[in-house]
Amino acid sequence: MPDFDLPLDGLRERHADDTTPADFDAFWQDGIEAARALGGKPTAEPVDTGLTTITTHDVTFPGYGGEPVRAWLHLPRHTDGPLPVVVRYIGYGGGRGLPYEDVLWASAGSAYFVMDTRGQGSDWGLGDTADPHGSGPAYPGFATRGIGDPEEYYYRRVTIDAVRAVDAVAALATEFVEADTSRISVVGTSQGGGLALAVAGLHPAVRAAMIDVPFLCDFPRAVHIAQRGPYTELAAYMRMHRDSVSRVRRTLAYFDGVAHAQRATAPALFSVALMDDICPPSTVFAAYNVYGGAKEIKEYEFNNHEGGGSFHAGVQLRWLSELRQGLETDC
Amino acid sequence: MPDFDLPLDGLRERHADDTTPADFDAFWQDGIEAARALGGKPTAEPVDTGLTTITTHDVTFPGYGGEPVRAWLHLPRHTDGPLPVVVRYIGYGGGRGLPYEDVLWASAGSAYFVMDTRGQGSDWGLGDTADPHGSGPAYPGFATRGIGDPEEYYYRRVTIDAVRAVDAVAALATEFVEADTSRISVVGTSQGGGLALAVAGLHPAVRAAMIDVPFLCDFPRAVHIAQRGPYTELAAYMRMHRDSVSRVRRTLAYFDGVAHAQRATAPALFSVALMDDICPPSTVFAAYNVYGGAKEIKEYEFNNHEGGGSFHAGVQLRWLSELRQGLETDC
Amino acid sequence: MPDFDLPLDGLRERHADDTTPADFDAFWQDGIEAARALGGKPTAEPVDTGLTTITTHDVTFPGYGGEPVRAWLHLPRHTDGPLPVVVRYIGYGGGRGLPYEDVLWASAGSAYFVMDTRGQGSDWGLGDTADPHGSGPAYPGFATRGIGDPEEYYYRRVTIDAVRAVDAVAALATEFVEADTSRISVVGTSQGGGLALAVAGLHPAVRAAMIDVPFLCDFPRAVHIAQRGPYTELAAYMRMHRDSVSRVRRTLAYFDGVAHAQRATAPALFSVALMDDICPPSTVFAAYNVYGGAKEIKEYEFNNHEGGGSFHAGVQLRWLSELRQGLETDC
Amino acid sequence: MPDFDLPLDGLRERHADDTTPADFDAFWQDGIEAARALGGKPTAEPVDTGLTTITTHDVTFPGYGGEPVRAWLHLPRHTDGPLPVVVRYIGYGGGRGLPYEDVLWASAGSAYFVMDTRGQGSDWGLGDTADPHGSGPAYPGFATRGIGDPEEYYYRRVTIDAVRAVDAVAALATEFVEADTSRISVVGTSQGGGLALAVAGLHPAVRAAMIDVPFLCDFPRAVHIAQRGPYTELAAYMRMHRDSVSRVRRTLAYFDGVAHAQRATAPALFSVALMDDICPPSTVFAAYNVYGGAKEIKEYEFNNHEGGGSFHAGVQLRWLSELRQGLETDC
Amino acid sequence: MPDFDLPLDGLRERHADDTTPADFDAFWQDGIEAARALGGKPTAEPVDTGLTTITTHDVTFPGYGGEPVRAWLHLPRHTDGPLPVVVRYIGYGGGRGLPYEDVLWASAGSAYFVMDTRGQGSDWGLGDTADPHGSGPAYPGFATRGIGDPEEYYYRRVTIDAVRAVDAVAALATEFVEADTSRISVVGTSQGGGLALAVAGLHPAVRAAMIDVPFLCDFPRAVHIAQRGPYTELAAYMRMHRDSVSRVRRTLAYFDGVAHAQRATAPALFSVALMDDICPPSTVFAAYNVYGGAKEIKEYEFNNHEGGGSFHAGVQLRWLSELRQGLETDC
Amino acid sequence: MPDFDLPLDGLRERHADDTTPADFDAFWQDGIEAARALGGKPTAEPVDTGLTTITTHDVTFPGYGGEPVRAWLHLPRHTDGPLPVVVRYIGYGGGRGLPYEDVLWASAGSAYFVMDTRGQGSDWGLGDTADPHGSGPAYPGFATRGIGDPEEYYYRRVTIDAVRAVDAVAALATEFVEADTSRISVVGTSQGGGLALAVAGLHPAVRAAMIDVPFLCDFPRAVHIAQRGPYTELAAYMRMHRDSVSRVRRTLAYFDGVAHAQRATAPALFSVALMDDICPPSTVFAAYNVYGGAKEIKEYEFNNHEGGGSFHAGVQLRWLSELRQGLETDC
Repeated sequence: MPDFDLPLDGLRERHADDTTPADFDAFWQDGIEAARALGGKPTAEPVDTGLTTITTHDVTFPGYGGEPVRAWLHLPRHTDGPLPVVVRYIGYGGGRGLPYEDVLWASAGSAYFVMDTRGQGSDWGLGDTADPHGSGPAYPGFATRGIGDPEEYYYRRVTIDAVRAVDAVAALATEFVEADTSRISVVGTSQGGGLALAVAGLHPAVRAAMIDVPFLCDFPRAVHIAQRGPYTELAAYMRMHRDSVSRVRRTLAYFDGVAHAQRATAPALFSVALMDDICPPSTVFAAYNVYGGAKEIKEYEFNNHEGGGSFHAGVQLRWLSELRQGLETDC
Repeated sequence: MPDFDLPLDGLRERHADDTTPADFDAFWQDGIEAARALGGKPTAEPVDTGLTTITTHDVTFPGYGGEPVRAWLHLPRHTDGPLPVVVRYIGYGGGRGLPYEDVLWASAGSAYFVMDTRGQGSDWGLGDTADPHGSGPAYPGFATRGIGDPEEYYYRRVTIDAVRAVDAVAALATEFVEADTSRISVVGTSQGGGLALAVAGLHPAVRAAMIDVPFLCDFPRAVHIAQRGPYTELAAYMRMHRDSVSRVRRTLAYFDGVAHAQRATAPALFSVALMDDICPPSTVFAAYNVYGGAKEIKEYEFNNHEGGGSFHAGVQLRWLSELRQGLETDC
Repeated sequence: MPDFDLPLDGLRERHADDTTPADFDAFWQDGIEAARALGGKPTAEPVDTGLTTITTHDVTFPGYGGEPVRAWLHLPRHTDGPLPVVVRYIGYGGGRGLPYEDVLWASAGSAYFVMDTRGQGSDWGLGDTADPHGSGPAYPGFATRGIGDPEEYYYRRVTIDAVRAVDAVAALATEFVEADTSRISVVGTSQGGGLALAVAGLHPAVRAAMIDVPFLCDFPRAVHIAQRGPYTELAAYMRMHRDSVSRVRRTLAYFDGVAHAQRATAPALFSVALMDDICPPSTVFAAYNVYGGAKEIKEYEFNNHEGGGSFHAGVQLRWLSELRQGLETDC
Repeated sequence: MPDFDLPLDGLRERHADDTTPADFDAFWQDGIEAARALGGKPTAEPVDTGLTTITTHDVTFPGYGGEPVRAWLHLPRHTDGPLPVVVRYIGYGGGRGLPYEDVLWASAGSAYFVMDTRGQGSDWGLGDTADPHGSGPAYPGFATRGIGDPEEYYYRRVTIDAVRAVDAVAALATEFVEADTSRISVVGTSQGGGLALAVAGLHPAVRAAMIDVPFLCDFPRAVHIAQRGPYTELAAYMRMHRDSVSRVRRTLAYFDGVAHAQRATAPALFSVALMDDICPPSTVFAAYNVYGGAKEIKEYEFNNHEGGGSFHAGVQLRWLSELRQGLETDC
Repeated sequence: MPDFDLPLDGLRERHADDTTPADFDAFWQDGIEAARALGGKPTAEPVDTGLTTITTHDVTFPGYGGEPVRAWLHLPRHTDGPLPVVVRYIGYGGGRGLPYEDVLWASAGSAYFVMDTRGQGSDWGLGDTADPHGSGPAYPGFATRGIGDPEEYYYRRVTIDAVRAVDAVAALATEFVEADTSRISVVGTSQGGGLALAVAGLHPAVRAAMIDVPFLCDFPRAVHIAQRGPYTELAAYMRMHRDSVSRVRRTLAYFDGVAHAQRATAPALFSVALMDDICPPSTVFAAYNVYGGAKEIKEYEFNNHEGGGSFHAGVQLRWLSELRQGLETDC
Repeated sequence: MPDFDLPLDGLRERHADDTTPADFDAFWQDGIEAARALGGKPTAEPVDTGLTTITTHDVTFPGYGGEPVRAWLHLPRHTDGPLPVVVRYIGYGGGRGLPYEDVLWASAGSAYFVMDTRGQGSDWGLGDTADPHGSGPAYPGFATRGIGDPEEYYYRRVTIDAVRAVDAVAALATEFVEADTSRISVVGTSQGGGLALAVAGLHPAVRAAMIDVPFLCDFPRAVHIAQRGPYTELAAYMRMHRDSVSRVRRTLAYFDGVAHAQRATAPALFSVALMDDICPPSTVFAAYNVYGGAKEIKEYEFNNHEGGGSFHAGVQLRWLSELRQGLETDC
């Protein structure tokens, strides 16, 4: 995929028009509070993964509507001192996977919480969480389920799950290990990056955000230039529902990472791929450029949506380590 | 798409292994009776379509779970004598469409009832009916929603809607026009053909079935040879859920058109396309060859899933006209 | 297909360079008069379509060179008062189809005349009309047959057929029904839209034109940006006939809808699809922006060449109805 | 393209059902004689190609209907003794090309006559010959023009051109060079191979035939298994013209290389590519296995339609050289 | 990718013709001994990966020709008792990757040695090892480098590297950890599976082999049916080098996993994907069915070359754990 | 492929940033002198090609590192007076081919020397020359072999071969024919065009250069916009080797045709294809616009990488003929 988006200068200066609804904050706070009000507690069952350096629990926590959401909690078997915490959100189509499949941040010495994504997890990574909500007519996939109403939109449920995951890890980690649940990092790629960004804007316990090639950003532009992936589901829906375009736009405005970014304050490390035709770079910069906290972005000049891949995982390991050392120094 | 399935002789003799569960009939009768027990009545609002030869009503009838399902009821404006009735089911991804979009059988002198498909109708034909049921992890699309349990499977709801559509048209048509609701024909293509076949097996009021390139037939073979379309969603799901293969097969056995075909008794006109890589011809013959009523099949030698297209509509117009004349003669 | 053409502002302001040859009007008037001078009369045989609300005749009328061109004439069986007339031209690759396939405007109360396209009708809609003219070396398809000379170009014959169709319907409709042949509308999509536009510019009896995603517009730009479809046949021909580029351009200048548009005066409803890679939106706006009559354009933001599809048919039903009411009021 | 046709044993033993019409020979002799009866003489104008080892004439000869067909006649500038003659027919979509483009057999010491193909020559090789015949509705391309009637079928005209090319070279070559026009070889690839095979069956002056991956063989099978190329035009036509299938088959039976092969007597060198999805190997063997003269076939195991390519040209140079030496020895 | 290979029964019974050269064993023993004779010792530098549960060394060991080959040696930081050893070989196009990228078997309590693949590692996983050998004309990729001569073939070098990796780990592991280097397992997917199979046949220290969707098996069939991937490089080479087919076959016979399989004796767990169009299932069964040791195969019915993926990693964790327990019991 | 690069004005004015390293000239002169210093003489064996107008020798000459490089030397059998000399370089993936495959310039009266490309010649044209040099990790293909270091880069070897080819033909031609080796033309397409351009800049004996759709020009832009072909290998390598981007750029700067062009002085005829997505037109103009000698460029408006094809060969035949006449006149 050669270049197809703005030139590099244009990318770096990209600012989207502000489409944030006036009641954006109320919309989210009401939703989160409603979920919290339903109560419920996370549960955790030990799992024999076959790994010996990591212990793993199969977690069920109350998400949107108090509905059960699954996660893995991975802990290094041998620790010294309280563990920092990392919460991961998963990319589109995948789920939390198998319990021995990704233990990276636990191997690096964190309590590592991998949230499943409701309804997904049948394409490239296994999921175990149902989405017990129907939908009006929708384009195949998840991105247009409930699109006619912000209250009913699929990503409202998923985002509230993601906020509640932070609540859950705070409640849970210290049961099994000495964990510093006041210092939680969120991380995610693509859809997971969009969720990490939203949670950075919505949950005050987040102290660091690692946001890779995020989805759910700058919808007005994304639906016109993305060439593959979930943004094209939105375009396909509007292709068919020709008289629902403004209604779809209104719904999406509540879910735009550009709005979440303005509200976030935790230090953030973004990554962007300059040849990404799923989450085009201009849409990532649109969020990055208004991000409210300390921030860095790593550009991958020749990458499509794979972005920095494992290479960037190394950048993140170093960044988070330095950030934590800085934080400790600050204290 | 050149030939890829069995040679012609093999197609014409194709018999699938019988995978019908012992409680197949109970499964369906219980489901249908439960829906009927919920009561509810169809309603119909007149629509100004801009057409002058046809009058159209926007119908809402109680389907599975008593949930509202939409349909169009098209009637010729000028009639003499009681009208026969034709019920159409729609292909995968589409909905009932716009009210002036397909009035073929009304233009040909029938009361024509076009059922919407719940949840669908955002890809190639507009839909207006919600499917208010969630799902466990599913592959994008509709074919794997609830696949883990026959009671929860998406096509249970849709099939019961389709049976209840026949109930609805019987209740409704005579409100607006003199209609002979004891002589109902069902027609459909692809998914619509699979539903027409199921209803022919499940509803005694069906007196003729026109079943084109049907989906939902001979799943055990279809998931191995279909090259595009909803059967491949099933294969994709089992690709990911490697330990759910036998469970998926168990669910699908309740929905196989091969079982419905054995139970049907109304005269049927099938069509099959010999180069169809979405609903492969061997899977169509597997149902046709065990169909329980008088039957004919029209083979389209050089067609893919478009099958007989508009050409076959002409074949159907003649077939149904002759069948009706024969029925009258018989009486 | 994401955006690939000019930004929306650029589209709406798009003006093509004027390449109209000085003898453009003489070229067409001479051609049309020569065809008329050959005389001949349309004939119409009744057809049993199986439809009961519509009566249909199989028409043969003298087109270019007096050669027989086929059409369907559909009439509502029950009428009150003189019928308005609608003439449809068909998209590239298709023909007039089967007689029960499209009776929309007859169902809506018009005399509906569907012209076959000579030589075409073997790809997606059946045709019955020969093009008894050979060609020099041509690229597979119709768009380069006779391209070396405006007099010999395939679209000269087809356009004159289209003009003569209006002559034919005027002569014919009143034989079967009370029709107002002084008020004829033309309608068409893609190639059919290009022909409707040409006829709007060439035939004074046209009182309304409905022109959807038209082909045959702004050739100089279209051959450089269209990504699929008949424009690419022209590019392919020039790719091979590297020394014929200016000659091809000279021929095409006589067939450019931009020139026809300037000459048209009837009220027109255009549609354009902003993601159309077959008839790119800038080429449609190039014609629309210079159209000589009262005009409206409906933009379909997320559509490729399917444009407004059936949705737009509803827009047209309302537009034409209102236009006719306005016309009656005016009278 | 991996293997898709019969296994090797099946290929080598492949025999097609005989579909040759009873009047096959009369059909062709009548057509050829009618063309000859129209008289006309080839003309040849010298061309400055820029080459110094070869002299070239631009030939026009009377083909089907006496219509002008173009060709190149290439002669080695320096000769000793009478030259053998090679006639080439061109593959589908191409024409005779530019005059310096292919002079292979002249460089190898023959009078080399390259026949243009009427109407073609705008895709991959330039053509200069018109096909001044119209057609009923046809699928884009040449393979279905006039398909409804053997007398009108495009390949009747082209085949008669090809026979008349041999007449022309016999009349012409000795004007410019001492040539042995009693010993003419024909050569061609794909469509050109099909024509060389037909001419080998139809023209007694042919003394050697080099037939590479021929098209126009075993139509009944080819239309079902070819995956690309002109056979698929035939399948596409029958896909649309569902009620013309037997008529198309009837026409094609007059043009099947399997019938020509049985009538040929000149020594022949065939080539076949075992992964050829345009002219599948089974269709080539169907002709080869019934070829009436001395014969050899060279199998290219890993090639698609490119077949033996330039490598096989070397095989042909040696084969023809040895054949000529044998012939001389025989004399 | 639907089914394209033999039916399931045929797969399970598949036996390839034996093409093993008479000097197969000498060829390999000579090559391995020559490499060992060059001496050299592995070196290992500690790497800071950012992981805390695993310690990693960057290894350089002498491979073919004594040339430096890179590897990672991962060890669990906390151990009790001697560690078993697992050696991984990498799939085509990849390299050993980044040091924190795959530590699975170390996390599961083994000394885990990940061998780089010379020359590769620029497509989907980073490599660091040069292949300091040129080649005659080759098709892009690695599979035809040196194909003209078994002694020069690329996979001779890689296979000897793989044997020497086992030598290296035996020499090295005990430097850093108590390891049981008499009980080494090999594991690999695709190319890595082919190498694991070869090493199981060539190195007596191998006590368990986990071989997933292996490449390098049953070349005579594979080059005819594989639809993507490195087997098609071989087909492409023979497509061009039409006169080298038998020479290529002769070379490949020295590298066929079918021959290695017959010589192996360690218990093996294979996996095969029944819709695998890169390493077709029949070629995997051809090796499996003649494998010389205790064996099991796990079939993935709906998978293409991704095979069992992470799911199968779990199967392997259990299988190896049980095997080791059985081995201990045996002792 | 429709337009995708700059508009025509932008193309014609395109200037790339100058990235030429300070030691560019030294780099090349040192390399060439080192090769010459190794000595060695070309050898030539007569070949029986089957052609009678051309005599051919199979040449082996010392290239980079004194390593044997193959070529064909074709001479017209009959000559009068000293022959001019043309040297051809081959496009990516091909080799010198079979000896009777391309003798164009010999047929046109030149001594024609066709250089093989080391390591290539297994994709579309046969090669016979090995590249006896290994490589670090490389992307499949040739364009990234040795990319980490200008001294080791594959194209250093090939370019020096190309310079030494001119040395060889000067030494060799007069052995067989009276040749004017002081007036050598170079010609090539794509990779061959890039090499012809480099040699025009590096070898003073070059008196005319015919450079078609050249590769190896304006790397910084090409790797961002090329959509197919060898430039995308470079992008793919940098996609994976994310931390080697600047190192790759540094290497490529020594091989950029933009730098060679500035140093060339011989008259040149370029060709460029405006829809070329392999060697985009802007990258060709970047070299053309700074070319140091008399120059012309022929634009092919509707062509992709096939460019002017055989048509342009005719342009070259005339251009070179006129140039030679002009040169003679000058003398």
